[in-house]
Amino acid sequence: MRQKPFGLLFTILLMLPLAGFAQFPGMGHIVYKTMPSSILGQEREYAIYLPKNYDTHTAKRYPVLYLLHGGGGSHTDWPEQGLLQGVANQLIDSNEACEMIIVCPEAGKNFMNYFNSPEWRYEDYFFQELIPYIDSNYRTISNKQNRAIAGLSMGGGGTVAYAFRHPEMFCAAYPMSGYFSRNESLAWVNFDDPVQGKVHQLVEDNNCVKLVLNSTPAQVDAMKTVRWFIDCGDDDFCYDINIDFVAALREKGVPYELRIRDGGHTWIYWNTALYYALPFVTRAFTN
Amino acid sequence: MRQKPFGLLFTILLMLPLAGFAQFPGMGHIVYKTMPSSILGQEREYAIYLPKNYDTHTAKRYPVLYLLHGGGGSHTDWPEQGLLQGVANQLIDSNEACEMIIVCPEAGKNFMNYFNSPEWRYEDYFFQELIPYIDSNYRTISNKQNRAIAGLSMGGGGTVAYAFRHPEMFCAAYPMSGYFSRNESLAWVNFDDPVQGKVHQLVEDNNCVKLVLNSTPAQVDAMKTVRWFIDCGDDDFCYDINIDFVAALREKGVPYELRIRDGGHTWIYWNTALYYALPFVTRAFTN
Amino acid sequence: MRQKPFGLLFTILLMLPLAGFAQFPGMGHIVYKTMPSSILGQEREYAIYLPKNYDTHTAKRYPVLYLLHGGGGSHTDWPEQGLLQGVANQLIDSNEACEMIIVCPEAGKNFMNYFNSPEWRYEDYFFQELIPYIDSNYRTISNKQNRAIAGLSMGGGGTVAYAFRHPEMFCAAYPMSGYFSRNESLAWVNFDDPVQGKVHQLVEDNNCVKLVLNSTPAQVDAMKTVRWFIDCGDDDFCYDINIDFVAALREKGVPYELRIRDGGHTWIYWNTALYYALPFVTRAFTN
Amino acid sequence: MRQKPFGLLFTILLMLPLAGFAQFPGMGHIVYKTMPSSILGQEREYAIYLPKNYDTHTAKRYPVLYLLHGGGGSHTDWPEQGLLQGVANQLIDSNEACEMIIVCPEAGKNFMNYFNSPEWRYEDYFFQELIPYIDSNYRTISNKQNRAIAGLSMGGGGTVAYAFRHPEMFCAAYPMSGYFSRNESLAWVNFDDPVQGKVHQLVEDNNCVKLVLNSTPAQVDAMKTVRWFIDCGDDDFCYDINIDFVAALREKGVPYELRIRDGGHTWIYWNTALYYALPFVTRAFTN
Repeated sequence: MRQKPFGLLFTILLMLPLAGFAQFPGMGHIVYKTMPSSILGQEREYAIYLPKNYDTHTAKRYPVLYLLHGGGGSHTDWPEQGLLQGVANQLIDSNEACEMIIVCPEAGKNFMNYFNSPEWRYEDYFFQELIPYIDSNYRTISNKQNRAIAGLSMGGGGTVAYAFRHPEMFCAAYPMSGYFSRNESLAWVNFDDPVQGKVHQLVEDNNCVKLVLNSTPAQVDAMKTVRWFIDCGDDDFCYDINIDFVAALREKGVPYELRIRDGGHTWIYWNTALYYALPFVTRAFTN
Repeated sequence: MRQKPFGLLFTILLMLPLAGFAQFPGMGHIVYKTMPSSILGQEREYAIYLPKNYDTHTAKRYPVLYLLHGGGGSHTDWPEQGLLQGVANQLIDSNEACEMIIVCPEAGKNFMNYFNSPEWRYEDYFFQELIPYIDSNYRTISNKQNRAIAGLSMGGGGTVAYAFRHPEMFCAAYPMSGYFSRNESLAWVNFDDPVQGKVHQLVEDNNCVKLVLNSTPAQVDAMKTVRWFIDCGDDDFCYDINIDFVAALREKGVPYELRIRDGGHTWIYWNTALYYALPFVTRAFTN
Repeated sequence: MRQKPFGLLFTILLMLPLAGFAQFPGMGHIVYKTMPSSILGQEREYAIYLPKNYDTHTAKRYPVLYLLHGGGGSHTDWPEQGLLQGVANQLIDSNEACEMIIVCPEAGKNFMNYFNSPEWRYEDYFFQELIPYIDSNYRTISNKQNRAIAGLSMGGGGTVAYAFRHPEMFCAAYPMSGYFSRNESLAWVNFDDPVQGKVHQLVEDNNCVKLVLNSTPAQVDAMKTVRWFIDCGDDDFCYDINIDFVAALREKGVPYELRIRDGGHTWIYWNTALYYALPFVTRAFTN
Repeated sequence: MRQKPFGLLFTILLMLPLAGFAQFPGMGHIVYKTMPSSILGQEREYAIYLPKNYDTHTAKRYPVLYLLHGGGGSHTDWPEQGLLQGVANQLIDSNEACEMIIVCPEAGKNFMNYFNSPEWRYEDYFFQELIPYIDSNYRTISNKQNRAIAGLSMGGGGTVAYAFRHPEMFCAAYPMSGYFSRNESLAWVNFDDPVQGKVHQLVEDNNCVKLVLNSTPAQVDAMKTVRWFIDCGDDDFCYDINIDFVAALREKGVPYELRIRDGGHTWIYWNTALYYALPFVTRAFTN
């Protein structure tokens, strides 16, 4: 049996379309970019999904979903492990999701968190720099009714805390497998380690259950202007805190959707969550 | 804002479990391996999924699914793009699939096909070397009732042709988006190129519709001992040939399941097909 | 063991809510009504689903779905066998379907068909009397972009034929298990019987495959203004004609969604079709 | 327009098959029956689903599912409102459920409960008379590994209490929307009414959360021999008690599956639950 080298062109031509990799002209696709941040003192990375014909339909504006990764993750997680582009393209092609821009920020490479600390004012960056930058550099519809937020694990905590503190910014919030409070039973975390301890302390400082339970009537009213969808697996180590979070919503009378599906704290769960999340935010968008 | 390097250990500890990457002891997992092939005159790669506790339950034997990649793909496709490990682990954890071994062969790097040609006797390799090797080196249950085959695109063609010619080997066959015959309308294929032309000629030589339509009564009876499940998207360029294949099964009276779901010739489609395929072969296995 | 009669009130109070029958004030519900028809020379029955708070939100207008029963059926089929009220209420409560009016006409008690014959001008009744009557007597949004049609079996044929001949009237058409042409292999039909022969002749006169294949370019353009969704089971005796219908749409370049799901020509299939159909027409409605 | 009477035969011939009503020979079907009960001092009704070819495959024995109605309901509920026959036939035809016998007892017409009281020893009837009667009069496989139980609302409570007290009898238990304890917030219940008060007192006496929390280690071990699946809607008034029940299972270390799906305390929820429950008990059966 001889080995026969053959041309790169052939390999690409045959492989790409059959393997589903192809970037057809005008197809919805993800690009990796950076933006400057003076708050964080560095270039920040992000991934952005631009829907089909974004480049040619230059008069069209789109709603935006901010889609957050988990603790220790990065902006490449949703594209690479969550199969984001494929799911978005398919749901948009069948109209189950509307054409939208999806932004995956990068919050994981330093202090790994979505919350402000003196040396890492990520939440300030998110609202003061990232959202304005996206609204300036992409054809978004820049208002509450066309902006939503979703995220997994620590990014689920970010989703809730951001939508809670800025209900004027988002019409919908979809936390997946939300890590809503410090969970000291996690065997793989060394809570005595200064860095790890700090990350989890920030999570605890933004305990989402307490945010809701301690909210003022005005905050509760504001929460009711956001559509909430809580999604957590029956085998997830975050199950209990998600149930507590739902109990807090119930106590405060905030409407929500809840799904407990099969699964754990895994990419399979988050990949399949997209099939619910993108249609959910689509129904919340008005445009 | 200062950049503070921190330890790799912390990064790994925090990142892996939260991001869903972790290999917990005993967890179902995929390993990449090679095996010798004298038929092909080279080491051949494969990926193999071993179910939970495979290493410790050393007296237990398992059914096997052979899961084929598409044209131009490789044995890493199902693990990396199809999210195979995660889907298998979840479905097995909830008993929707039984514990099974899943073998992803590598057929794409040379003449890119599952069929015999003088210089690339892949089908001979598959039946004379690969299956015996797997049965010798892993704790399979080595019989028809515990062996199934599935595959996408060209691997869907391989699935059908293999199960058609060796119905004594498989209890179930699940072609996804099957590329069952040469499709001369594919703009990205240069059918005049010697290599490409040859690959597609081999597909045509194994035209699955003709295999069924030209089958003898004995072959039809043998086909009825295999459970067939045809799965193809409504936007797939292989839609017509899949419909023709079903028509051939109908003409011959061979029972089958058919699903036309939303989607095209994409990894999203094949990833979601696993949620149907693994339970389907589970129901076909007896053990 | 003694038999103890106890009050009707208790029975009703306990039974209804627990059994899910209750009509809570403002809940979406179905009512059975009649309307006069001078074309048909008689009162015609219909069922109508009115969404939640229809009676109190008296300034609100709604899109309308016409939902057709099958041959030999009646306007009570969708409510009683298709679980229409429950599905509509649930999908609307979770916003997967918008608030809409759903009209189930009655076409089955005489010549059992949706098509005009000299003594039973049902199609004339539908367009000249029923739609205007509904638009006059209920708070519909009376235009193409807020009117859709769906139906099962012979009602799937009605769905296609009506949307084909009146594309200016409907934004979406969803035939389920469409009986699109006379199927002479149906063992239970006596095609020599004058009445049965006539019914099936009318179906054949309105053969949906031929309607599409014989359409003019202007008709094709008009078809493209309607969103089409074809839904048929893999075990349905109408499978082949549905595939032929899709082939006709493909030949003419009319976009469509197609799903082949598990099942036959059964109420289970049509009940589950509602979970696809109501969101589909919702996405087509603009209001 | 003249009214023309036409033959009953034609109506039946055309209507039944198209409307999906037909009882084809050998098709899985439901029959309504009665059996004597000396414990209850009366004939008791039940509905029984017999799978396809039950009457002709006279040597074959089948696993059995007991499927309980809700408070105030009857044995006709699952057939008439839950579309039981259609769902069972479809899932069995595609092998997603195995051929099984399904028994729907009648517990609702007197004291409306599954639990023993001095004048209505229903639980005694169930275990001492009903199960033996079914095992004697139908070709069941009469052992734990081939017997399962499921039910809705009060029947969900019966499901849990029966499987808890008789874990030697069932391999699987699937409560839907379980009414596991007296819920005094139910506005439509008059808890001061002697009859209603008694029914709900019996529920409280069999509080499923307390059963689990108060169980002995031996009882916990026995519970682990049953596969548990808890299914409750996110809008169900029984949501909280179902969450409490799951918390009790977690506290005791009893494995379970949990799904919180969209919906309330409705027949839509229970109808769709069958698509999960029948495959779940199938996976638990060994035969």
